[in-house]
Amino acid sequence: MRVLGIDPGLRITGYACLESIGASLLGQVRIIEAGCFRIGKPGASTDDLLPKTAATLSSRLQELDRDFRELLERTRPSVVAIESIFAHYKHPATAIIMGHARGVLLLAVRQCGLELLEFKPNLVKKGMTGHGLAKKDQMQRAVQSYFNLPEPPNPPDVADALAIALCAIRRAEIGAQTSDFAVIRQA
Amino acid sequence: MRVLGIDPGLRITGYACLESIGASLLGQVRIIEAGCFRIGKPGASTDDLLPKTAATLSSRLQELDRDFRELLERTRPSVVAIESIFAHYKHPATAIIMGHARGVLLLAVRQCGLELLEFKPNLVKKGMTGHGLAKKDQMQRAVQSYFNLPEPPNPPDVADALAIALCAIRRAEIGAQTSDFAVIRQA
Repeated sequence: MRVLGIDPGLRITGYACLESIGASLLGQVRIIEAGCFRIGKPGASTDDLLPKTAATLSSRLQELDRDFRELLERTRPSVVAIESIFAHYKHPATAIIMGHARGVLLLAVRQCGLELLEFKPNLVKKGMTGHGLAKKDQMQRAVQSYFNLPEPPNPPDVADALAIALCAIRRAEIGAQTSDFAVIRQA
Repeated sequence: MRVLGIDPGLRITGYACLESIGASLLGQVRIIEAGCFRIGKPGASTDDLLPKTAATLSSRLQELDRDFRELLERTRPSVVAIESIFAHYKHPATAIIMGHARGVLLLAVRQCGLELLEFKPNLVKKGMTGHGLAKKDQMQRAVQSYFNLPEPPNPPDVADALAIALCAIRRAEIGAQTSDFAVIRQA
């Protein structure tokens, strides 16, 4: 089973493709590919998180769409996993921009006919660190430890994508215990 | 000159294609087509504005993408006009969902190589009614009066799309007075 976890953003979208070998809890999980799409100027300020114009936005969405479809083609997952959106964001304007990126990614997933699983952010954090409100660096260290990586995945979006993908793998292994996860199968 | 104005939403996306005949202020503007895409169940509650699952969301985005590309094919505008996003929305969660729809539409505009113009919401309202904070029914009545329609355009999203398209037509006629509008040309 191959799962692609994604953590959408307009400037950085983290992704991680995991494969589970063996169907049981004793099975192994290996990383096929993990990284992020950086869109826009490298080293741009946080202002860059909120592109000022629809033209800039549409140009970035085109880049993201192309990169993401290439990733799907290259890694060939059967399932894509994503965090669900929640009602309260610290930075609503940034969340609206993130919505643009998430919309483009969800459309591609649908058009490719892939299964879509969705997990609440606090469950992804809890599953990885034991704490539903874990901070970015806690997540990075927990992911490093779990996958026995030489360094914490960086940027944090990559660690998040790895944790999201792992959630989906575990969900498949655990099977029916869906009450622990906000899991929705695509119709 | 043919302009397509769009007012994106996930449940209802209003659209209006206008054509200006003659290049000057004396030229006429006629409606080629105006309407809306209704996605999801007709008569659904406002809960429906915030689809609970990414699967539902992705399915609607697919519908919206298909309908929108058909509209572009049918009306063949050279310019697409849209309202800019702003930082403070009454309902942030709904705005994030709107962002998904807006992202899918902006991607299609870009992929079709169309020029994209963007206007601040209060300038669209001011241009139509004289008031930057005009309410929905004021907008509907002003649009009805301007285009000499038998009834106010309904739902309000159609009136908004007509007003947005008219902004773009006027901007082309007025030409250089871009300081009045938040206008950005696609690079």
